[in-house]
Amino acid sequence: MSKKIKIGLFGFGTVGRGLFELLRDVPTPNVSIEKICVRDISRDRGVNARFTDSADEIFNDPEINFIVELIDDADASFEIVSRAIKKRLPTVTGNKKMLAHKLPQLIQLQKEYNSTLLYDASACGSIPVIRNLEEYYDNDLLISVKGILNGSSNFILSKIFNENMSHSSALELARREGFLESNPTLDLDGWDSLFKLVIIGVHAFGVYVNPDKVFNYGISHMNDNDIRFANEKDRRIKLVAHVEKLFDNRLVMCVIPQLISKNKFIYSVEDEFNGVVIKGLFYDKQFMFGRGAGARPTSSAVLSDITASLYNYRYEYKKMNHSQSLPVFTDDISFRIYVRYNDPVDLGLLHFDEIYESYSSKGYNYIVGLVSLRSLHASREALNARNVFLAAYPGD
Amino acid sequence: MSKKIKIGLFGFGTVGRGLFELLRDVPTPNVSIEKICVRDISRDRGVNARFTDSADEIFNDPEINFIVELIDDADASFEIVSRAIKKRLPTVTGNKKMLAHKLPQLIQLQKEYNSTLLYDASACGSIPVIRNLEEYYDNDLLISVKGILNGSSNFILSKIFNENMSHSSALELARREGFLESNPTLDLDGWDSLFKLVIIGVHAFGVYVNPDKVFNYGISHMNDNDIRFANEKDRRIKLVAHVEKLFDNRLVMCVIPQLISKNKFIYSVEDEFNGVVIKGLFYDKQFMFGRGAGARPTSSAVLSDITASLYNYRYEYKKMNHSQSLPVFTDDISFRIYVRYNDPVDLGLLHFDEIYESYSSKGYNYIVGLVSLRSLHASREALNARNVFLAAYPGD
Repeated sequence: MSKKIKIGLFGFGTVGRGLFELLRDVPTPNVSIEKICVRDISRDRGVNARFTDSADEIFNDPEINFIVELIDDADASFEIVSRAIKKRLPTVTGNKKMLAHKLPQLIQLQKEYNSTLLYDASACGSIPVIRNLEEYYDNDLLISVKGILNGSSNFILSKIFNENMSHSSALELARREGFLESNPTLDLDGWDSLFKLVIIGVHAFGVYVNPDKVFNYGISHMNDNDIRFANEKDRRIKLVAHVEKLFDNRLVMCVIPQLISKNKFIYSVEDEFNGVVIKGLFYDKQFMFGRGAGARPTSSAVLSDITASLYNYRYEYKKMNHSQSLPVFTDDISFRIYVRYNDPVDLGLLHFDEIYESYSSKGYNYIVGLVSLRSLHASREALNARNVFLAAYPGD
Repeated sequence: MSKKIKIGLFGFGTVGRGLFELLRDVPTPNVSIEKICVRDISRDRGVNARFTDSADEIFNDPEINFIVELIDDADASFEIVSRAIKKRLPTVTGNKKMLAHKLPQLIQLQKEYNSTLLYDASACGSIPVIRNLEEYYDNDLLISVKGILNGSSNFILSKIFNENMSHSSALELARREGFLESNPTLDLDGWDSLFKLVIIGVHAFGVYVNPDKVFNYGISHMNDNDIRFANEKDRRIKLVAHVEKLFDNRLVMCVIPQLISKNKFIYSVEDEFNGVVIKGLFYDKQFMFGRGAGARPTSSAVLSDITASLYNYRYEYKKMNHSQSLPVFTDDISFRIYVRYNDPVDLGLLHFDEIYESYSSKGYNYIVGLVSLRSLHASREALNARNVFLAAYPGD
């Protein structure tokens, strides 16, 4: 392990700066940042480091033997990461949106160029979910991975359910605390969770599902009636990402708010934390919990990816490469949901297999019924345009 | 990955049989059990497998390319495991007592013979603690690992604190459910936790500490007064194993019952479950939770070790081999404890740096004070012979 890692870093936002500070403050003898590529080189960032605005300067620097990519733009991220792979530079990225869309190409490129790309930091910040799925849950016992993968929306939901904050003031507080992305719909409408779920699906079950095929729905439309409904049932609303292999080897994935009862692990995942429940034959359930967002937890995850490279660690994509029969993605299943609506016409957007409960009053109407995931997905855009809120409502 | 693992299995107790059933029931195409070595070959075990009572027969079988050792006897376990390493057969063991005493030799042997020994199943059953410490928490950020590592004693404590069972009926129930080892003091007096803690210390901090040097104390002496005391303070008693690197690079380890307040993760670890809190700079706290005991969870952990070998995974003992300055074990620290005693003479066994509270009545006396770990360790035998109960009582 006499190897020294000399990093060319792309991006100096929250996580990039976090990594810089971590390496400055915690002795890590074999790892240093050589040069940092940023868009605007003229800005004074108040740190003692070499900046450039030229990707070429990073890639042509013979000293640099490692790329860490921590920028926001998914297209630029893919360009950098694929260029690094082709140059056989070990690379770490945190860009979940890019990964969720480009993983098949990146897996192919890694194979072609015998190169290494790590991205544990991209899903669940400091919780080593991908590494564990890849290394430890690498047999056929795994049934499902389910969790709270987005810290920002969970922070808002916690403030609402634990501190009786209104939806709007919780949102405002999250913004003030810096927990929301510049485009808050990424967090609130479940896109961030969706991208992470797609990455998890690859390592958990060996199946890549394009994010366009997966139903995601968030908490933007949730209102006080929904919160009261949950409280009356002694449940909390959580934004849950879920991938599950059914007994017939079909694979189901979705991101949807869920009415969670007290006896569930994720009921107690509070604030900006993430929590993941891994369920399998024989070992039953396991639960991993930790900080899912923020500069410091995420940069510590980036550091774990970097030091893993010191030992030539790479994802083997074990399930994808070696499973005897990969599960097949489907959205042809139905599950119980709660639907709050204003205009009964909107119910036409949903195709209920069965209706269990129906309530109407002057200002508040809801239905509890069985709806197919496929029909939900088909109506997603239309539903998002209406004054409607959906949440999975398991009968447990 | 065309390699086929053909196992020579030692032991057909709870976990050995669990592994057999797992491989029989869950398709695992590259793994099979070739032969099973047991003490008494005449017993009908009701399964379709080849048994032998000769270790030689296993080691001389040219078909067998993998050893799984799941017997109880620590000395015999060491003999088998070291013989396997010397024959360069990849080996998996679950014997924590053996590992806790022999790890330095086994690490040396692995190096010498360039051979592989895996034992994630030995600590915390199905929770991949060792693998995570080795692979993910491999940088210098780690501060402490603390947890409930013994499912049996936790089962008893849960029945007492959640279901108001008496100590003796909880013990009886644990026995009936098969949660207790044939020698229950292993579980109840913290030996099992201690052995696991020693293994964890090696992978978390690169330091091997002989179990003899570590203070362990269990719940055998706990009585109704102690339970009432905990309840009055709105706490629960849990048997906690703890290893921590202090800011001055000294390492502290111990196993002791602790009065845990509600806001702690491990407060909610119930029944036969295990829970581990990993604390570090930057990522703050992470929590892993799962089934820590029993045939099925443990055998699934053994299977994870086996399949890891398909990919030539081995522990690198990263911290031990590569840390710049390994922490140094000490027991020269003091902490706040609760001591319930009958005979004031017994207090002479303890050296209080400071006394915070003192209570006396006809049938119940206690002191809360600051005691050094070293003095506790020195008096362990004497304390165990007296009607005294100790529990760490942090002031949080």
